[in-house]
Amino acid sequence: MSRATDGLLARAAERLGTGAVIAEPGDMEPYLTERRGTYHGKAAAILRPADTQGVAEAVRLCTEAGIAIVPMGGNTGLVGGAVAEDAERQIVLSTERLTAVREIDAANNTMTVEAGVILADAQAAAREAGRLFPLSLAAEGSCRIGGNLSTNAGGVHVLRYGNARELVLGLEVVLPDGRVWDGLKGLRKNNTGYDLKQLFLGAEGTLGIITAAVLKLSALPERSVTVFAGLPSPTDALSLLTRTRAALGERVSAFEIVSRRSLEFALRHVERVRDPLSDSHPWYVLIEAASSRADAGLEEAAEAALAEALEAEEVADAAVAQSEGQAADFWHLREAISDAQKPEGASLKHDISVPVSALPAFIDRTVAACQARLPGIRPVIFGHLGDGNLHFNLSQPKGMAPDDFFALREAFSALVHDNVEAMGGSISAEHGIGIMKRDEMAARKQAVEMDLMRAVKRAIDPDNRMNPGKVIALDRGAKEP
Amino acid sequence: MSRATDGLLARAAERLGTGAVIAEPGDMEPYLTERRGTYHGKAAAILRPADTQGVAEAVRLCTEAGIAIVPMGGNTGLVGGAVAEDAERQIVLSTERLTAVREIDAANNTMTVEAGVILADAQAAAREAGRLFPLSLAAEGSCRIGGNLSTNAGGVHVLRYGNARELVLGLEVVLPDGRVWDGLKGLRKNNTGYDLKQLFLGAEGTLGIITAAVLKLSALPERSVTVFAGLPSPTDALSLLTRTRAALGERVSAFEIVSRRSLEFALRHVERVRDPLSDSHPWYVLIEAASSRADAGLEEAAEAALAEALEAEEVADAAVAQSEGQAADFWHLREAISDAQKPEGASLKHDISVPVSALPAFIDRTVAACQARLPGIRPVIFGHLGDGNLHFNLSQPKGMAPDDFFALREAFSALVHDNVEAMGGSISAEHGIGIMKRDEMAARKQAVEMDLMRAVKRAIDPDNRMNPGKVIALDRGAKEP
Repeated sequence: MSRATDGLLARAAERLGTGAVIAEPGDMEPYLTERRGTYHGKAAAILRPADTQGVAEAVRLCTEAGIAIVPMGGNTGLVGGAVAEDAERQIVLSTERLTAVREIDAANNTMTVEAGVILADAQAAAREAGRLFPLSLAAEGSCRIGGNLSTNAGGVHVLRYGNARELVLGLEVVLPDGRVWDGLKGLRKNNTGYDLKQLFLGAEGTLGIITAAVLKLSALPERSVTVFAGLPSPTDALSLLTRTRAALGERVSAFEIVSRRSLEFALRHVERVRDPLSDSHPWYVLIEAASSRADAGLEEAAEAALAEALEAEEVADAAVAQSEGQAADFWHLREAISDAQKPEGASLKHDISVPVSALPAFIDRTVAACQARLPGIRPVIFGHLGDGNLHFNLSQPKGMAPDDFFALREAFSALVHDNVEAMGGSISAEHGIGIMKRDEMAARKQAVEMDLMRAVKRAIDPDNRMNPGKVIALDRGAKEP
Repeated sequence: MSRATDGLLARAAERLGTGAVIAEPGDMEPYLTERRGTYHGKAAAILRPADTQGVAEAVRLCTEAGIAIVPMGGNTGLVGGAVAEDAERQIVLSTERLTAVREIDAANNTMTVEAGVILADAQAAAREAGRLFPLSLAAEGSCRIGGNLSTNAGGVHVLRYGNARELVLGLEVVLPDGRVWDGLKGLRKNNTGYDLKQLFLGAEGTLGIITAAVLKLSALPERSVTVFAGLPSPTDALSLLTRTRAALGERVSAFEIVSRRSLEFALRHVERVRDPLSDSHPWYVLIEAASSRADAGLEEAAEAALAEALEAEEVADAAVAQSEGQAADFWHLREAISDAQKPEGASLKHDISVPVSALPAFIDRTVAACQARLPGIRPVIFGHLGDGNLHFNLSQPKGMAPDDFFALREAFSALVHDNVEAMGGSISAEHGIGIMKRDEMAARKQAVEMDLMRAVKRAIDPDNRMNPGKVIALDRGAKEP
């Protein structure tokens, strides 16, 4: 360890408390190990300040010592955005001790929470106040709000409530120079100059550290209806989306698509997964609609839309959940797919989006191209049809050596992402860029867009101290710590 | 006129067509005159390119000549944001010829329009495709989309659909160096690096010129219900908002508040304004709820909520519009208030917001302070209760000389805005900063916030060519053209 770091850690222990510094390799391990095992981090230490002022102090100490900072929330990211990469010149700054719900203002439909609040705890706090915090995603039991906002998290309710960015009214941020920007306003309208919070939302910690946020709350649903339907094709799924929205309006809160193979993998490998329908169908959708009113019309409207779709042969069969337990079973099936791929061997994953109207063509074209490239390849397609975001995953052909399949990673990534690009889509719909997609993003974006991003990074973090190397690599002209 | 400008205009006429250059004083007048008559502009010329490449060419020509650019949409702004201030070294760049609706993708719920499309035309184009573009505000017959996005326009439907910023999925922007950034994506989820469109939305043309946008569309309402209610106080109005939302959920699309004096001024001075209620009440609300379904329950739910509110004595009397004509009358009353103030003498206007929960206390406190400062002063309070935005206007006492009242402009602005600031509000909720509020904003914002804004401005427009002097004044260290 460098002398600079020694001094830093001593000062950090003094100013932030001894519990705020972790430098023993064994104790550091959880902060260096990443969920999918794709990366393993290296860092001089972990700093765990207890509050905003502590975060600011930590940033100032690092700046003095010339040490870069890798901010970490719940460490559930999938693109290496929170992985430190230098055992001497980088520290991990965890927000896990900033766990206060500072305020809930039910009449204003807002909640002020610190960055380290676990998403599920934020949801629960809102619920206790009779409100809904609608952000919902698989990692909600361990991801933290600061990370959700820094990655502009998506999830299953974007269709109705928007991404994390749309759920934020105000932010508190520790800047690269250690100053605190208090932008914790709970306003629906505020046009006083540049909307600075937008800089930090989705910036993956490369411009500063979000320490607290004012979040928008919605009405708590009183009633919901959950439908699982089997249908011939993604085109039919898109028709059903239009039909469902015509019948249920903005009350449609989730519209997920699941391919037959995704369902089969879940049935085969995950406990308690059952097929809600008696026959087999090429595609499925999981629909949820919810209303804040004890509104008896919800189920009837959903059933009427389904009846029309059955009549039009867009839907082959459908089950409407008759209890909360059954609705939970439908969701369990949907959520089991991620884990169900592993027992089937190697898989290549793509988190993409295209315009909703282009989804059927995208799926047809890309599946055909994958199968032409490698006969026997098994596409595992599922995701958020309602907002155009697919998890377009590819499982290896049966019997192929996993390493041979992984050797094709670049080729398939290029194939899938070329189709995405041709249709005006995104190569990272909800997971972000981190390390994993940094170079590919740079290769695919217009030069003018990369120039703008670099200009923003240099303007806010001129010494490249905040999560250096994530999202964008600065060119040789820039200082790298 | 300087030689630099002569050369510029000759080149502009050559490259953009002669119709693209206006340099005769009489012809320039409409581009230099501002709606409220607060400012009168000075410019070397008006440039009116016909398309995005023409805008880019104009920007490059101005850069070569060292001339700054003041972008203009429909010239309906209220803070001087589109007023050019230098007869030799600034030109006005009007987007009025960029009027194409490039694409409507109904299945994706998106529409791609150029910056010069008039808001009402964009609404109509969406309607023809069976969709709603929900941005709605008083100037919609003449304001243009580019200006709406550059000022992050608000209006009456923010409660349900958000501000202009929330209605944009993609942008095309001509940058200060004349390059074009094509960010015209129609995606609901896209986490590939910094969300660059956020920089230009609400920047009032100080970072670049928006030339086109992909806008989000919503379901077209099939049914609506419009209610005009009289009530004792803003606290009761807030209770009614909560009650109405509980009954109607997200279908509440407008919730406006009107003080008795606002209504009286409208009755007195504007044609065809009628009081929908027989008795007089201190406060009124105008509520609109709409549904995309032919949903018979809408009116019943509204009436049930009103009945409860009457029972609880939160509402004294209410009228539910029995026809579209009657609903239009309610809205005519609401929209007449702006014009109705002029015949009552001098008035001082404030476009403010506070958290919705703080509105009643803000009104009580600020009215009392104004009356203590100047007995006989007549507050004219109306606005968008549902999103916390009030037009907190002050009409002069009867019989006072208008100039004596205008002499108190600064004093009352300070009084109102001090209360706004104390309650965590905004001194410009929807009109923006422009010239009018630039210095006050700088005085009221945290130093760190102004530093961030300046850093962004310098990063994107290092030579300060884009609408210089609007929103932020750069300090002496910066180059001013």
